[in-house]
Parts: sequence; C-alpha cells; structure tokens
Amino acid sequence: MQHFDSDYMEGAHPAILEKLMETNEEKTPGYGTDAYCARARALIREACGCPEAEVFFLVGGTQTNATIIDALLRSTQGALAADTGHIATHEAGAIEASGHKVITIPHTLGKIDAEAIDSLCTTFYADANYEHMVEPGLVYISHPTEYGTIYSLSELKAISDVARKFKLPLFMDGARLGYGLAAEGADLALADIARLCDVFYIGGTKVGALFGEAVVFTKPELAKGFFTLMKQHGALLAKGRLLGIQFETLFTENRYLDISRHAIDMAMKLKAALIDAGYALHIDSPTNQQFVVLDNARMDDLSKQVSFGFWEALDADRTVVRFATSWATREEDVDALIELL
Amino acid sequence: MQHFDSDYMEGAHPAILEKLMETNEEKTPGYGTDAYCARARALIREACGCPEAEVFFLVGGTQTNATIIDALLRSTQGALAADTGHIATHEAGAIEASGHKVITIPHTLGKIDAEAIDSLCTTFYADANYEHMVEPGLVYISHPTEYGTIYSLSELKAISDVARKFKLPLFMDGARLGYGLAAEGADLALADIARLCDVFYIGGTKVGALFGEAVVFTKPELAKGFFTLMKQHGALLAKGRLLGIQFETLFTENRYLDISRHAIDMAMKLKAALIDAGYALHIDSPTNQQFVVLDNARMDDLSKQVSFGFWEALDADRTVVRFATSWATREEDVDALIELL
Amino acid sequence: MQHFDSDYMEGAHPAILEKLMETNEEKTPGYGTDAYCARARALIREACGCPEAEVFFLVGGTQTNATIIDALLRSTQGALAADTGHIATHEAGAIEASGHKVITIPHTLGKIDAEAIDSLCTTFYADANYEHMVEPGLVYISHPTEYGTIYSLSELKAISDVARKFKLPLFMDGARLGYGLAAEGADLALADIARLCDVFYIGGTKVGALFGEAVVFTKPELAKGFFTLMKQHGALLAKGRLLGIQFETLFTENRYLDISRHAIDMAMKLKAALIDAGYALHIDSPTNQQFVVLDNARMDDLSKQVSFGFWEALDADRTVVRFATSWATREEDVDALIELL
Amino acid sequence: MQHFDSDYMEGAHPAILEKLMETNEEKTPGYGTDAYCARARALIREACGCPEAEVFFLVGGTQTNATIIDALLRSTQGALAADTGHIATHEAGAIEASGHKVITIPHTLGKIDAEAIDSLCTTFYADANYEHMVEPGLVYISHPTEYGTIYSLSELKAISDVARKFKLPLFMDGARLGYGLAAEGADLALADIARLCDVFYIGGTKVGALFGEAVVFTKPELAKGFFTLMKQHGALLAKGRLLGIQFETLFTENRYLDISRHAIDMAMKLKAALIDAGYALHIDSPTNQQFVVLDNARMDDLSKQVSFGFWEALDADRTVVRFATSWATREEDVDALIELL
Repeated sequence: MQHFDSDYMEGAHPAILEKLMETNEEKTPGYGTDAYCARARALIREACGCPEAEVFFLVGGTQTNATIIDALLRSTQGALAADTGHIATHEAGAIEASGHKVITIPHTLGKIDAEAIDSLCTTFYADANYEHMVEPGLVYISHPTEYGTIYSLSELKAISDVARKFKLPLFMDGARLGYGLAAEGADLALADIARLCDVFYIGGTKVGALFGEAVVFTKPELAKGFFTLMKQHGALLAKGRLLGIQFETLFTENRYLDISRHAIDMAMKLKAALIDAGYALHIDSPTNQQFVVLDNARMDDLSKQVSFGFWEALDADRTVVRFATSWATREEDVDALIELL
Repeated sequence: MQHFDSDYMEGAHPAILEKLMETNEEKTPGYGTDAYCARARALIREACGCPEAEVFFLVGGTQTNATIIDALLRSTQGALAADTGHIATHEAGAIEASGHKVITIPHTLGKIDAEAIDSLCTTFYADANYEHMVEPGLVYISHPTEYGTIYSLSELKAISDVARKFKLPLFMDGARLGYGLAAEGADLALADIARLCDVFYIGGTKVGALFGEAVVFTKPELAKGFFTLMKQHGALLAKGRLLGIQFETLFTENRYLDISRHAIDMAMKLKAALIDAGYALHIDSPTNQQFVVLDNARMDDLSKQVSFGFWEALDADRTVVRFATSWATREEDVDALIELL
Repeated sequence: MQHFDSDYMEGAHPAILEKLMETNEEKTPGYGTDAYCARARALIREACGCPEAEVFFLVGGTQTNATIIDALLRSTQGALAADTGHIATHEAGAIEASGHKVITIPHTLGKIDAEAIDSLCTTFYADANYEHMVEPGLVYISHPTEYGTIYSLSELKAISDVARKFKLPLFMDGARLGYGLAAEGADLALADIARLCDVFYIGGTKVGALFGEAVVFTKPELAKGFFTLMKQHGALLAKGRLLGIQFETLFTENRYLDISRHAIDMAMKLKAALIDAGYALHIDSPTNQQFVVLDNARMDDLSKQVSFGFWEALDADRTVVRFATSWATREEDVDALIELL
Repeated sequence: MQHFDSDYMEGAHPAILEKLMETNEEKTPGYGTDAYCARARALIREACGCPEAEVFFLVGGTQTNATIIDALLRSTQGALAADTGHIATHEAGAIEASGHKVITIPHTLGKIDAEAIDSLCTTFYADANYEHMVEPGLVYISHPTEYGTIYSLSELKAISDVARKFKLPLFMDGARLGYGLAAEGADLALADIARLCDVFYIGGTKVGALFGEAVVFTKPELAKGFFTLMKQHGALLAKGRLLGIQFETLFTENRYLDISRHAIDMAMKLKAALIDAGYALHIDSPTNQQFVVLDNARMDDLSKQVSFGFWEALDADRTVVRFATSWATREEDVDALIELL
C-alpha cells in the first residue's frame, strides 16, 4: 500500500532525530531561552537577510495563525483572507474565538490579488457606515496556497504595496513555505518574503520537522508582547529547545530548501507521469500537491493500493483527489505509484 | 426639508411618553422585575399565542443579536446567516467578539431559503474534515430583511423544518418586525412566528418605542441563564420598567400592529407615486423601506429638499436610494415628498 | 410603605421628561451625531475644564465599564481594581467575556491606595516569570465606591501619580459621580478628576436620568476607534439624541450638582437621625448611601414599613442594611422614615 | 555546575526516543487517529480502571487547562481555584482570554478544601444578586499543587462530594501527576482520581515525555465536541502519533509510575540531607519539589555551583528556593549537590 494522503505522515528528517538523541540528557532552561533557539534564530535571520527580525517558535499552524492575528489586530479589526484560506475554513473558528472576524475575498485557485484588496478597502472607507463595520486590519495570504498555487514576486510586491497603502500588516502563512520556495518556476526567495511581508512563518511540521513553525516578524515593533501572548494562546512549549534544535538542523547546510526541492522533484515526476497517462489535472500546481481528476470507478480501484486525499466531487462521475509528496517521499514509492496509474 | 432617511428618527409614540410621565415618580425595583415588565410579558405571550414563552427586554438590536447568539451557541458553533444579514455586515464584529463565526449563505434580496440551509448542512457533515470546521449552530434570519423583503408562511415553514431536521435553533431578528407583520401581502402572523421559530424579537426601537427589543424564547429551556448573560453583555437596563412600560403600551389596544400598518400605508402611497412618476424600483418591497433608482443629477437635485438613505451606486450614472417611512410618518410629509418627485 | 432600596427606583428629573416631550417629533440622525449630543458634549467639556476631551454617551454602567476596559487593554493586560470593585463582583464576568482579567487589590472600605498599586506593579516587574502573567494594564477605581466612600484630592493625586509612573491609564467609574462630587466634605471637583484621570464617566442612570453614562476621555488619543467598539459592544444607542437631551439638561444651570447635593442633604439628615436614635453605622459614609447595623428583630419589624437594601450579615443576630437616597428623594419621605426609626 | 531548577530541563525517557527513531519512517494518519494513540488510550483507560473514559492528547499544560475549562463552562460560569492555582497566576490570562473568570479561594500550601468550596457556593446562591455574578461552574485543583503538596484520598473524596452536591465538574490539573501518585505517603491512586474527578490529565512534559498531556474524561458526555475545541484552541497536533507513541511508552511496563518514584526517591534523599545539614524547609513536601530557606549569603555562594528556582524572599536576609528533581535526575548529581550543602 502506498500513501500519498498528505505531507505530514512521517516523523522528522533523520538529522533532527539524531540531534534530539545526542542532546537528550542536556539540561536547558525552558520556553525558548536556550542556546539552540538562539542559534536557530540567528540562522533564520541570516537566511531571511533580515538581521533585525524577531523570531519565535511555535508548535502548530492553527495556533500560530491565531496568535499572530490576535497580536496584530485591535478588537474591531478583521483579517482579509481568501475565502479558501485556512483561517477561513479549517481552523474550527480559532480566529473568531480570539474575537476577530475573517473578511473573505473571492479566490482564484486559492490566491487573492492586490486589486481585490485595494477595491475592498477603497469601498470600505467610502461607505458612510464604515464605522459600524469590522475594519480591515491585516492581509493574510498562504504561500503556497491551499490549492498548491504560489505567488510570484511581482504578485507579492503588488499585494505588499496595497497593504502598505492602507497601513495593513501583511502576514504570510508559510505552513508549507519550503514547497513554495522550491516550487517549479518559483521566483520568490526567502529574502523577498522578508522584505515584502511584515510577519510570516516558516513551516516545519510539513517540511522535515516533527512539529514546529518559526514565526518571523520583520518589523520588530509588531512583536511587542508576543511572548506573553504565546503563553496565553497555549503556544509556548516548555521544552523550547526541541524547536530550536529542529530549526537549527533545518537551517544548517541549506537543508530546508534541499529537502523541499526533493519533494518538488517527486511531485513533478508524478505530475509528468499523470499527464503522460492521460489524466486531467484539476489545478496546474508547481508544488508538492497534485490535484487530479479521476473517474469514480478508477478512484475506487486505485484506492485499494494507494491512499490519497479526497478533494471534491467534480460531478456525479468524477472526483478530484490530491496526491501529496513530502521531504520524506521515496522515489521508489513514486515509481510504484506511477506503475499503478 | 423632508426626512425619509430611516425609521428611527423620531422619539416615541405619544402614548408611551404620556405613560412615562405619569409613572415617573413611582418607585420600582430594577432589572425587569417590576409589574410593568410582568404585564408586558403577559401581553406579548398572549399576542404570540405562546403561554409558555420566556420574554426578556433589551435595549438595542446589536446587543440583542449578540446576546441571543451567545446564549444559543457552543464555542465551536457558528450562526448561519445571509451574507447580507445585519450580524454579518453592520454590527462591527459583535458576534465574533463573543467568539462565534457567522457562516454566510448567498442571499436573494436579503433572504435565504430552506434548500440552501439544507445543502450547506448536508455538505458540511459529508466533509471528512468537518470536525476541523465551525459547525452550524443556529439559523439567523431577519424579517423583514435588510432589503425590505419578507418571508411568506410557507417559506418560514420550510426553513423551520430544515432547521429542526439539523437540530438548529431558528432565530428571527425582528428589529422591524411590525413592518413585516403589516407588510402588503404578508401572510405571516405573530403566532406563526412563535410556532416556527425558537427565539425571535419584537423590535421597539424602529416601531414606536424610544428604544427596546422584546426577546421571545418560545422554547423556555433555551432561555436558561439568559438573565445573567444579558448582564454580562451590558444589555440589562437598570430601570427595567422603562422597557416594560413601552412594550405594555405597544401591546395594548393592538397598537403595535396599527402603527406598523400606518407606516406601510405611507410606504405604499409613496411607492405608487414613484411608479406613476416613472421611477424604477430597485427592489419591489412590501414594507416601509422603498428602494428607488435615481439618476445622479436627479438625486443631487432632490437631496436639496429631502434627505434619504444612500444604498448603493448602480452604475456610473445612477444610484439606488432608500426612502423609509415609520409609525411616525405624517401623510402630509409623504404628500410633500410626492410633490417633489 | 417607604422605599430606600437604591438610587435608581424613579424615572428622570422632570426637566428631562419635558424636554423629551417637547422634542419628540423632531427628526434627527442617529448614533449620537445629532445637535443635542453635540451641545451636551460641549457642556461636559466645559464643566470638566477639558476642551480637548472626547465625550461619548452610553446606556448603562456595566456596558460602559466593559467597553472602556476593552478599548484600553491589550489582550494580555488586566485591570487593577479593588476586590470589591463593581467590575470584580457584580458584572457577571463582563470584563472576562471581553478577554481581560481583573487583577484585584484588597480594599479599605471599597478604596484602594497608591501604595498598594505601586507595590503590586513593582513586585510584578521584579518577578522572573512576569512574562507568563497578566500584566497590569490600567487602574480602575469607583468614586464614590461601592461602600459609599470617596477619594480625597490628595488620594486621587497619589493614585494618578503612580498610574503614570507605570504608564497605566487611570479609569474612574463614576456611576454615582454626582454623589461623590456633592458628598459631605468632598474636596474633589470635576476638573480635578479630568486632570488626574485618563478616562472617567459621569453617571446619569443613578443621578437624574432615565439612563445614560457620559464617558470622558481626557486624552483624546485613547478614544481612537471607540465609536466602533461601542457598536461592537452593543452600547451604541440608535436614537442617540435621547442621551444628548438628557445630559444637556443635566449640565444646564448646574442641575447635575444641584440634584446630587439634594440627595446628600437627605442622606445627611437621615444619618444624623440614625446616630441620634442610637443606631450603629457600619460605614461612616459622606454620600447618598448609608450603611446601618440593625438587630435582626428590628430589621424584620422595620421591613414591614420600609424597603431597603440587604448588605451583609454581621453576625447571627445583626445585619448591615443600606438606605439609599437619590436626586428624587422627597424630604417628607425621609421624615417619615425617621419617624419609624 | 548542577541544575535543579525545574523538572522539564531534559529531553525524554530513552525508551521514548528509541520508539520515535524506530517508527520515524512510518506513515500514519494525523490528528490522533493513528494506532499508537489508540493503544495509548487503551492503556490509560486500563490504568485508570475506567473503560468508558474518553482520552485526548494535547501538547502542553496551559493549552490543556484552557481547552478543558472552555469545554466545561458556559459563558457566565467561572472556575473555582486556589488563588495560587496555575490558571490563576501563571497562564497569562488564558482562561480569561476564553471568556471565563477564575474565582479564587484562599489556599493552604497550595490546596483548597471541601469546606471552603461548600461555603463559597452556599454563600453565592444565598446572595440576592447572584444572577448578576459569575456562577461557579467547575472546581479546579492541581495535584501535586504548585507548592509541592498533595491531596489525600479523604480530602479528594470530600472535594468530589461537595462538587457533586453543587453539580460542578471536578477537574484535576495533573501536570506533575506522576510525582503526586508516587509521593511519600500518598494514598491516592490513579483509579481513585478517575472515580472522584470528572476530568483530569496525566502530565507527560514533566514526567518522562518530550511534551504531552493525556486528558481523561471519566464522564464521556463531558467530552462532546472536545476534538473540535482542541482544534480551535490550537491544541491538536498534526502528527498526533508522536503523543500516542510517548504515552504508549510511558504506560507500558509501569514506566510512568516507576520513573516518578525515582524522582521522589531522589527528592527524599535530598530532603533528608537538607534536614541533616540543618537547613529549614519552607514547606514539608512529599514530592519532587523541595522548598528550602537559605540565608542570602549562602544562596549566593551556592548559586555559583548549582542552579535552582527562586521562590520568594522570606525577609531581608533569607530566601526560599526550590530544588526540583525529575525522572531524569541522576543519583550522582544529587550526591554532588548534597556535598555542596
């Protein structure tokens, strides 16, 4: 049986486990005040070309989104997001539970564009009743998106410009950031993201770590009080060094990008095979997520030998499914899957 | 200068002011525990044909919506509402501030239909990831809607049926309820509403009172703890008798419906005149709100002699405006407005 | 039967009702944008000697406390208050419902002192773990307190100094402010309060109005976004002029202080009679609230002819009860009560 | 340099790391739906003698407390806790951020007793204004407490009885549960806790795991919707098996109790040596936390060779410090510390 359901099915990159073994008996102070975290922060600042950045380590994506958004918004402000954005759909109301509205914008394959943000904000402030409404307070984008699409440098630049025009912090959810940076045709580097966003995070859970997300505030003043807010959100790990060790390992010897590149290579090999075999792609994704249209009979058949993600019913007879590769995907497993197609 | 901006521009029905004068020096206990509130509750229960109903008096619409929704929902549940619903648009995030998501459904002239609710709930529970999402927790409708449209008895019956199918309390925002009950062609009576909804409120602010909304829980068990929740939401008036006196007065001698009928009569007279004068109606409303398309030049001209509500720009040259009548609108003012058209 | 239960048993000062009658048919825009509110704001700014103040009108005390505190605090900050403070005890968790902790300080007859605040803050920042704790974010005091005591000018000055030392806004709950200003021996004037506090409110509900609290931000920058926050808290009255009319009336011809002085005169007459008759005062209050120790048998007897507030059981045989006078208390009723003693 | 600062300074028990290594390349579904979690749940149910229990795995203590309390309380209810309870002091307002008040009870060495709970509840419901106040909604205790003290079986029985009398769920914070079960003189077993509490958690972070807390609802109906609430609170780990593997390992071959016992043995050895050396104990603790009074000069001296926790200044010359042992403490390190005393 092959498994291509998601990119968080395995444990961690072996170098991480080795380091955890090696350091297991060391005694360190808690809550991210240890030397591993300090080194991981330094490596991330360097990789981002942003020496003034404030870096924090959290455990998972939903808690990271909720904590960052709570830090940036006043009570009457909302987060602008694609209507398909993770915070708008699959976080069980974590943003609203902190008292904030998600103001949705129609998506195009998971992405929003600068023009739509500009138009929404312009219309908002032109409304005579705008003081009775939730004010746009930040822009949230995910990169890659939930649809496996990516922003180009020029697209991100445009979004950043409009966000700054309306004084809205720009926040990028990078739960799968490595797969965006390494995506086929990507022209957006970590330093660009650091320059254009006010805060973003570098996903570890789906890219080589057991768990962990590294939050980068490129404007340090936005991070004021963030440590205590992490504590309040239950997002402060007692044994913080576990996060420091993981990110230090991922940001040593270019490992984060290398393993991300591997996932993309595997996905592109699979994608080519799917096209060759005559399958229709639902979305032309350059990332580790591939969305394929299957006849239902074929899907049932295939599901006996490989597990994959159900995406949506296309019509009565056909279904869109998702195959996800990851840093851990073995080429032999991709080959085995291709055999089955 | 004539004023048709909204239905909350004047004070209160004279009978209410007289009663306030007359009782001003009386000493009563606070927080709705007085005899006026008791009588008003009895009159409302009777008017609703629902002797077991629990009735509470609050001050304004937004606080009433937020308090009721907070009472009915668990933390991970949301309120289904039209995307044009007041709670989704013009309450400054009051629902989210209590921790709840508004789950929007596309509207048809401000209304949602049973089928859309059924489809949304069916799809929700069919989703493999539904436990990662905000669960539908109640159905919110406004009657009349923000677009001046009304639900028919059969429409409300269908919505009530689907709500019960999914065990969702049905909550009707009746900020303008009188104008819905008295609307041209309305076939929905107060007793129908009480039978089909689990909770609703009878708007006073826009229908004859200085302020005040009477909340009717037709299922008393849903009202458990509501008094304390009102206090927590800042919705418990110290001198509660002011609300009791107002609703007692409105529900004496059929006053609530009579004054609502007057507003409708005035609106229908205006509507007929608008049609006669060749204006295009944007929405064919049977209620006290009339939405008319005006050329911008005409609008500017008219606005020198009458004030009205700006609704939306239709295109570069034309605007939709709203004329609202109320219980207090004088026929001579409607005639004066018609003269100007 | 006489009633001395509380100071919110009657309606409003006759001049207010007359004005409401007189203006009833006027049409004004909503939400506090009318001319009555504008004039009331100007009168209040003048009475406070604070021309730059931002003034808002809300309906009741709990909603006012919750909205102001929500406006001033970040998510991880709390409100310092006496453990007997209204926000700590009798608001059904309204502060916590907005996500904020009330950090309590032991009281002395309802008051807190500068030294206790200084000590708490000094200890807090000296704690190695303070970043794991709720940070002091503002100081809340009530004047008069829930125990009918008042702050002197020097006490308030000291509290203001320590609040500024720790950069904590000082917020005074003035639900009974008139009775504090007019209290026997009071040396604290409105202009002092405006100078020493960052925000406070002038209670109307208990001092001559049907309802209403006038919030004064003496530092306008603290009021940023307050209008929308009022809307979110359900604290924005649609027919805002009702509040404007009431406060305009109260701040015309020194009415607010005059009627407060009357309540104090009545309370002092009662207090003298109580002492003469040999009753023990539980608290030596210079305000409209008088706390008296009664033998239980005497209390039961008295309660057949006069209603009063139950305060607390002193021991098995004696109870503390509260007699409250108000702007509306008639001298003949005080005389009748004295007769009964 | 020796380190006795806290019980979360090392990584995990070697058996856990081995198992993580061994299973690293396995592919499992996420969010706790894997076979490791299933087995860990079964082992915990068995250890608790509670086959019907619902078991969930979360990452850290603060998020666990906040999620459980949010699950159990209605909006107007609060959590009764010792004023020294972790939720009342060191969780940065996590409970209030979910909208709930912590209602504090004075502690005795970190503990509360049944009588105090009974008295508080009785007084509460006897208060004429109780509907204006936050209602007691659950009882929170920590075992061992923050002061290193433990409840006896009869004490817990009494608390459980009074909680049931007032229909309050009893929730035990077991962040250090192992050290309570294994404490010197403890007569409270896991099965007793399961029988007497409605929900509790078995701490992993401080007792052998890298991280993780196992929540046990002994009344399954209280767990309704808990999975989604975990997601909302950011407390649902994507790679849930990491928690399953850890708790399966800890609950195999009696490991959880055995390693806890080791920590206690080390603490008792240290305690005896402290007494022998003439030090004064601040608290007579039977657990892994020992609180000792040191002259400040001695403390400064000692701190050059050993790190420990600062607890509180006793007076100008003396300080209370905490030495904590853990499952990982080596006897040779305790001996080395004893040498230094």
